[in-house]
Amino acid sequence: MFDQKTEKRVAVFFADGLEECEALIVTDILHRAGIPCDKVAITGNLAVTSSHGVVVVCDGTIEDEGFSFDDYDMLVLPGGMPGTTNLADCAPLADAIRAFAAEGKDLAAICAAPTVFAQMGLLEGKTATCYPDMQGILPEHGAVVSEGEVVIDGNFITSMGMGTAIEFGLALVERVLGAECSRAIREQVVYLH
Amino acid sequence: MFDQKTEKRVAVFFADGLEECEALIVTDILHRAGIPCDKVAITGNLAVTSSHGVVVVCDGTIEDEGFSFDDYDMLVLPGGMPGTTNLADCAPLADAIRAFAAEGKDLAAICAAPTVFAQMGLLEGKTATCYPDMQGILPEHGAVVSEGEVVIDGNFITSMGMGTAIEFGLALVERVLGAECSRAIREQVVYLH
Repeated sequence: MFDQKTEKRVAVFFADGLEECEALIVTDILHRAGIPCDKVAITGNLAVTSSHGVVVVCDGTIEDEGFSFDDYDMLVLPGGMPGTTNLADCAPLADAIRAFAAEGKDLAAICAAPTVFAQMGLLEGKTATCYPDMQGILPEHGAVVSEGEVVIDGNFITSMGMGTAIEFGLALVERVLGAECSRAIREQVVYLH
Repeated sequence: MFDQKTEKRVAVFFADGLEECEALIVTDILHRAGIPCDKVAITGNLAVTSSHGVVVVCDGTIEDEGFSFDDYDMLVLPGGMPGTTNLADCAPLADAIRAFAAEGKDLAAICAAPTVFAQMGLLEGKTATCYPDMQGILPEHGAVVSEGEVVIDGNFITSMGMGTAIEFGLALVERVLGAECSRAIREQVVYLH
C-alpha cells in the first residue's frame, strides 16, 4: 500500500483533546504521497482520545525506547482544545521544537497549535496564521498574521483549521516532494479547489 | 462538549479498509452540529483498521446486544478499499439499506461506497456521483452520473472522495438541521469554499 518516495520523515503529535481530523487528514495526505509519517502520542499511552471523543491508536509514543525527535525532518502540531494546551505543556516536545527552530528544520501547525510556536517566541517577526478566533495571540508575540489558508515563512508552515487541513497537508507534500506531487495528490483525493 | 440539536440519529459504518478521513470528517461535522452520530463497526470488533493502517475505536458494533438499524434516521457509508467491499458483503447492513430505501429514509455514501447502492439496484433512474475512477459503474446499474461534489436525489446523498468529504458532511447537516446550521458549521471549521 505505502509507496515510499523520500527518506524524509514527518512526526504528527497526538495529544488527548486534539482535533482528530486535523491530524489524520495530514497523515492521510502524506501517506498517499509516499512520505513516511508517524502518528506519535505525547504520553506513554498509544491510544489518544480527541476533543470529539474519538479514540485513535498511534504508531508510537515519545516515551518509547528508541524514540528520537532527531529521526524526523518535520514536526506537525494539530489543533483542538485541550490538545493544544497539552502539546504546549509537553516539555520534551517543546525542547524538540526549540531545537528544530534553531536548526531551521520544518515546523508546522494548524488551528490553535500555531499559538504554541508563538508563545515560545519562535514567530517573532514572522508571518503566520491560526484559527481565526485566536489570531490575536500571534501579534502579542511579535508575529504578523497573514491572509491565506496556509502561510509559509521560512521553516514555519501554519494553517487555520479543519476546513483548511487538506490545503495544509498538500502544502507539506509540496514542501517535501515538490508542487507536481502535491498537484497529483490534490487530484487523487478529489480536492477541487 | 456535545450540544444535541435534534432527536434524529445517524450511523456511520466502519469496515476494515475504509478511508478513515471520509468517515471521521463526517462524524466530526455532525458532532459539531449537535447531530447524534455513532461510529458503528460492521464486525464484532470495535477497533477498525483503515486502508492507511489507522486504528480507530468505534462507539459500538452491529453485533452489540441492543443494536438496531431502526434506531437511526440516516445510514452513511464511507469509501476506501477494501472497506467498500466489506460494507457490500455485510448482509445485515445490506438488509438495512434495502429497508431504508423502501421506507424512503436517508442513505448517504462517498467515494467508492455509492457503488454499493448502485450494485444493489437502488440507484436505478436516479442521479448520483462517486469517486471519478468508478463513475462508470453507476450507469451500468441504471444511475445517471451528475456533476457536483455532492449529489442529492430523493433520499440518496452521494459524494466523490476525501476532498469532498467536508462538503458532504455539511450537506448531511443541512439535510437534518437546515441550511443556516450548515453555514454556521462551514464557518466554524474555516471551510472557505
